[in-house]
Amino acid sequence: MSRMEEVELTNMCMICDGNGNVLVQNKVNHPSWHGWNFPGGHVETGEYVTPSVIREMKEETGLTVENPRLCGIKEFHKSKDGKRYIVFLYIADKFSGELRSSNEGEIFWYPLSELEKSDKLIDGFGEMLTVFTDSNISEVYYERTADDFKTVYC
Amino acid sequence: MSRMEEVELTNMCMICDGNGNVLVQNKVNHPSWHGWNFPGGHVETGEYVTPSVIREMKEETGLTVENPRLCGIKEFHKSKDGKRYIVFLYIADKFSGELRSSNEGEIFWYPLSELEKSDKLIDGFGEMLTVFTDSNISEVYYERTADDFKTVYC
Repeated sequence: MSRMEEVELTNMCMICDGNGNVLVQNKVNHPSWHGWNFPGGHVETGEYVTPSVIREMKEETGLTVENPRLCGIKEFHKSKDGKRYIVFLYIADKFSGELRSSNEGEIFWYPLSELEKSDKLIDGFGEMLTVFTDSNISEVYYERTADDFKTVYC
Repeated sequence: MSRMEEVELTNMCMICDGNGNVLVQNKVNHPSWHGWNFPGGHVETGEYVTPSVIREMKEETGLTVENPRLCGIKEFHKSKDGKRYIVFLYIADKFSGELRSSNEGEIFWYPLSELEKSDKLIDGFGEMLTVFTDSNISEVYYERTADDFKTVYC
């Protein structure tokens, strides 16, 4: 029996410099969804998830990340059609190459401890930051309530 | 732009007793796919991944696992239709309840160090066991070669 469903697969990666800084992207290429987040993008059809992280980091930061590690996921169902959306969240602390921004947005190092307090974060990124930084949390998702959505960490 | 694709989502969980033993299932309910593995099953439509792990563990082991943690994924593309199949791999070491087998197969504790050497493992499970036990590995997938498939860990 087939148990297929339609899913949109994306990735995001926190690249750490070993001195408390992480690589932030100021996302500017989307018409309405602007702000600070981590670099990432779509998993292409036929591509596997971890290789897609390495490709996206190269494209959006210029860096070649080595041994990115899966630290969690974000999931939600789109309100328009109810379809599932999964963001695979990775951490990388080994990399080579020259830092370079892309047309997705400017890339810069920023202290992780201050990032959590910033008011410049893109919508929905604060919840993902919790998954990136708390090793006891594997997932964040939105649970539908009678009149709204509740953010659930687990 | 929609970037949806058809995916089959499943889970598997290594439940640890804290004394070097893990909960093994001797899978018997599939016509041809028999052998030892860890309990797991499908993520249902509309269900999130981590809650699906808790539900499957309850159904197949009788135990209520607390705070299961995502440790990696297995991915492959089905040879029949090329569609993507993802297994979300979790580890749990906190649980409550009474151990109870299901019609999926008998459940029993077994030393993890001996499991890796067993010749009773179900096809494809040995590769997943590597992801469960090596914290530097996040994923295993099969890469198509000219005449076969190559197992890739990353």
